[in-house]
This record gives sequence, structure tokens and C-alpha cells, in this order.
Amino acid sequence: MTSVLDDTPAPAFSHALRIYWEDTDAGGVVFYANYLKFFERARTEWLRSRGFGQEQLRTELGAMFVVVHTNVRYLRPARLDDLLQISVDITDNSGAAMSFFQTARRGDDVLAEGDIRIACVDSTTFKPRRIPKAVAYTGPLSG
Amino acid sequence: MTSVLDDTPAPAFSHALRIYWEDTDAGGVVFYANYLKFFERARTEWLRSRGFGQEQLRTELGAMFVVVHTNVRYLRPARLDDLLQISVDITDNSGAAMSFFQTARRGDDVLAEGDIRIACVDSTTFKPRRIPKAVAYTGPLSG
Amino acid sequence: MTSVLDDTPAPAFSHALRIYWEDTDAGGVVFYANYLKFFERARTEWLRSRGFGQEQLRTELGAMFVVVHTNVRYLRPARLDDLLQISVDITDNSGAAMSFFQTARRGDDVLAEGDIRIACVDSTTFKPRRIPKAVAYTGPLSG
Amino acid sequence: MTSVLDDTPAPAFSHALRIYWEDTDAGGVVFYANYLKFFERARTEWLRSRGFGQEQLRTELGAMFVVVHTNVRYLRPARLDDLLQISVDITDNSGAAMSFFQTARRGDDVLAEGDIRIACVDSTTFKPRRIPKAVAYTGPLSG
Repeated sequence: MTSVLDDTPAPAFSHALRIYWEDTDAGGVVFYANYLKFFERARTEWLRSRGFGQEQLRTELGAMFVVVHTNVRYLRPARLDDLLQISVDITDNSGAAMSFFQTARRGDDVLAEGDIRIACVDSTTFKPRRIPKAVAYTGPLSG
Repeated sequence: MTSVLDDTPAPAFSHALRIYWEDTDAGGVVFYANYLKFFERARTEWLRSRGFGQEQLRTELGAMFVVVHTNVRYLRPARLDDLLQISVDITDNSGAAMSFFQTARRGDDVLAEGDIRIACVDSTTFKPRRIPKAVAYTGPLSG
Repeated sequence: MTSVLDDTPAPAFSHALRIYWEDTDAGGVVFYANYLKFFERARTEWLRSRGFGQEQLRTELGAMFVVVHTNVRYLRPARLDDLLQISVDITDNSGAAMSFFQTARRGDDVLAEGDIRIACVDSTTFKPRRIPKAVAYTGPLSG
Repeated sequence: MTSVLDDTPAPAFSHALRIYWEDTDAGGVVFYANYLKFFERARTEWLRSRGFGQEQLRTELGAMFVVVHTNVRYLRPARLDDLLQISVDITDNSGAAMSFFQTARRGDDVLAEGDIRIACVDSTTFKPRRIPKAVAYTGPLSG
């Protein structure tokens, strides 16, 4: 489990989302598998904040991301109506794959955290390919 | 299938949401059952706009809503990255149950539309009960 | 809401499934939208019992089914560990679309029931097309 | 990522399941988060094979399992209509928590594999408690 680097070059990205009935289970709390969905929504919005939609990536650049590894700890339960903040920090960015450290927070409490690794594949052949340069660049956005 | 009443007393409520990978299926479009989730997110936000969270309803007023009937037509497919507007219009509001006409639109296109009926139950006994007055009131909000 | 015809030509098909944590919500019961999934699993197994997989339909016959209308009543809650029987009865079968009446039962109790209408489309163009003959035939199976 | 122990005391348990439309995403393959659901279905059936339902555990023994850590690798895609075998092997069993190594296979191919850690909590207070003895015992079943 990687920690957020103190001197991370890219600023953390954060996405807010609300907990609905669909997200909960009979234990009265959020079903743990759904944190993977929350983490992905935040990565998708991070990508969009950089100017890329996933559909556009596929159709225009012929690139698709696939998740290859998820390592997640579930620390405290989230409940109906909670407003969560999902963070996105890049921890590795090397050619054909990227790794992220992500957290789900309610206020100051970390409810879940994990490392997610995604690989870039050709959207037709599904073979590994380099991440398009414009996407891989993670320096400060010029606005 | 009820149409939106021309002289509906309450103004239509609308909730925006984004389509993510989790919402799609191998047909390349949104999995139809997920429109029920989208409709519910919008009803939940409508309720919140009136000052009520679902969890708060349960704990403070001892009331819970259960869905008893859904009648939905799927007209056009939604795709990854689409931004949808989900509308909420009350078509019946009588004591222990409420009916809504809801649509999912992308721009001017209606992708799905349907009638959803919910009943109010006691959150402990699950027996039908009247909807709390403050919730049932659907006149104009005083702000 | 159509009832099962007394003289339905095709024998009712039934598919058994178990309720898991993933199917429930914070109300302690099955999340209503999931009955659409259960109904679909049963239709898929009905199709398989006739010799057709959905993937095979797409690749070999160029045909895909899309759900165009679902009208469902939720009568009694299902709970964790329940074993449900999902029935499939054809109520209409005319060219490019089929309708089904389906129920979810636990023992003798009907928990949910509804009418589902599906249309056949070309898997490439997504234009309506006739249901392949071998699939549409709903007389008795010769074994 | 733990490997299956060569001299594991308990025989591996396996649960078969079918891939439906609901399990797939627009990439044409199974949505990766769903493997967590598949792994849980198999653990639930493993528990049932030992004589315990999850609902019964909660009501009769006041015990509930919560997932605290999932570490999963996604190796090959599963597709519509695939029949998967989900394995369950206990890798740790110490008092108030258990760890499992699980795989999803299609024939001889491992599609996903991972380590899942669950903790036992009191179903009312949600405080950690010892796993009920009858459940924790993982020696050979006497039949």
C-alpha cells in the first residue's frame, strides 16, 4: 500500500460524490466493491479535467485503459446520503501503464484507500501500447 | 405511461449525472436496469432539495420509501461520458404513496422515460404509513 | 400487467438463483432494480435451453436483443440467502420483438412480477430486424 | 499476492457461475469490480457448504463478516456466456479475521486472482469479535 508522496509533482485531484440506496447493502453501509467504482469515477473525471473523455480516447486515439491490479483497504463504513471526496494521485507513470493512490474520505475520515494500476491497450487489438503523450503528461496544467 | 401534466403544480426538478464504465454493458451502451438507479438518484436529490435526506427521514421521522411499481420505456441508448438530465415530476400524491413521471434526456433527446410509484412504510414495522406532511407538501418552496 | 395465459403453448421455464450481499440494500432487502437483472438471467438461460448463447447469437447470426419496455411490480421483499425461482413465459412473439411475463417467487410467494419486451436488432447497425427463426420458434422442444 | 499453499489443510472449494449482460461493460468484457462480487458469492457458498447462511449467522450467532482488504489482479478478460469457476482457499484463520486466496478460472485459464481478508464483527455493535468456533473450524468435514 503506497502512501501519498510528500513531494508529488502533480497536484491531487478530488471528485465529490453522494451515496445512494444503490450503493449500500443489507449491512446498512456501502458495499465494499463499490469503492472500485468510486475510484474509477474520480480517475475518469481527472482524465476529463485534462481534456480527455474515455470514449474520445477510444475513438480518436485508439487507446483504452484497462484495470490490471487493485489493492484496497476498507477502514470505516460510508452510509446513505454521505458526501464523499475521492482523491487521485499518480504514483507511477511509465510508458504503457500508470498507478494511482486513491482515497475515499468523509470530511477528515479516510473510509477506504488503495492502489490502482491501469494499462493502456489498443482499442481494437487489445494489445499493450504506450499511453498517448498528451494523457501521460502530468505536469502542471497551463489552464 | 403518464405524460407530464401541462398544468403540473410543482415545477419539474432535474438532476444531472455522468455515464461511467460501471453503467455500460457489452452492447456498448448503458445497461437498461441502470435507468432505475438514475431515476432514484434524481428523486433522492429532489427530496434533499426539499430539505430531507433519506437517512434522516428514517432516523428522525421513522419513515422509509419503498418502490412498488416501475414502468419504463427505453427509447435511445446512452453511451460512456454522456451527461444526462434526469427529471422528476409528481403525478400522484395521496396519503401513503406517491407517483412520479421521470425522463432521462441527453440534450433534447429522451433516452428513457417511466412512471415510478413509491409507498411510505414505517421504518421499523415496514407497515404502510402516511407520508410525513412536510415531505408530501409539493407546492412552491418559499425558499 | 399481463397474466400468465392459461393455455400458453410453451411450457413455463424457470431459473433458480440465490440472493447475495451484492443484491441487497440498506433497507435489509433486495434492491428492486435487481429484479430486472434476475429476469434477464432467466431469459438468458431460457435462450440457452433452446440452444442459443447471447454471444453466439451476435457473432453467428448477427442478432442482438435489446430491452425496450419493463413494467414491474414489487410485492414482497427478498432477503439475503433466499433462493428464488424466476419464471419465463412468452406472451407475444411477432417478428422483430417478443414479450415475456416473468415472476420472482420464494416458495409459493410471488415477490415481483412484470412484463418485459425485447426487440431484435442487427448487432452491427443496431437497426430492427426479424428474430432468427430458430429462436422465435416456441413450440415444444423435440428433446 | 499469496500463492495457494501446497499443503493447505482444507480442500479447495469451488463455485461455478455464469456471465450475464449485467456483468459486462462497454469494453465487451466483464467489469473488473465484479470479480469482487464473484469471489464473495463463492465464499458465501463455501460458508453454506459448512452449514451456515450469512443471514442465520447474524440472527442466531450475532456475527457478521466485513471485508477489510482486497488485493486483486485481473489477468485475462471474461466474456458474455462464459462459465467461470471461483475457488476458495483459506490462507489465514486467526481469531477475529480470516484470509482467502481466490481465483476466477475459465477452463484452465486464470482470469483473476486475489487475496481477500474478512473480519468478524458483532452484528449489533459492529465491534470486532471472535469468529464463531463452528465456522472457524476448517478441518475436513465429517459429512
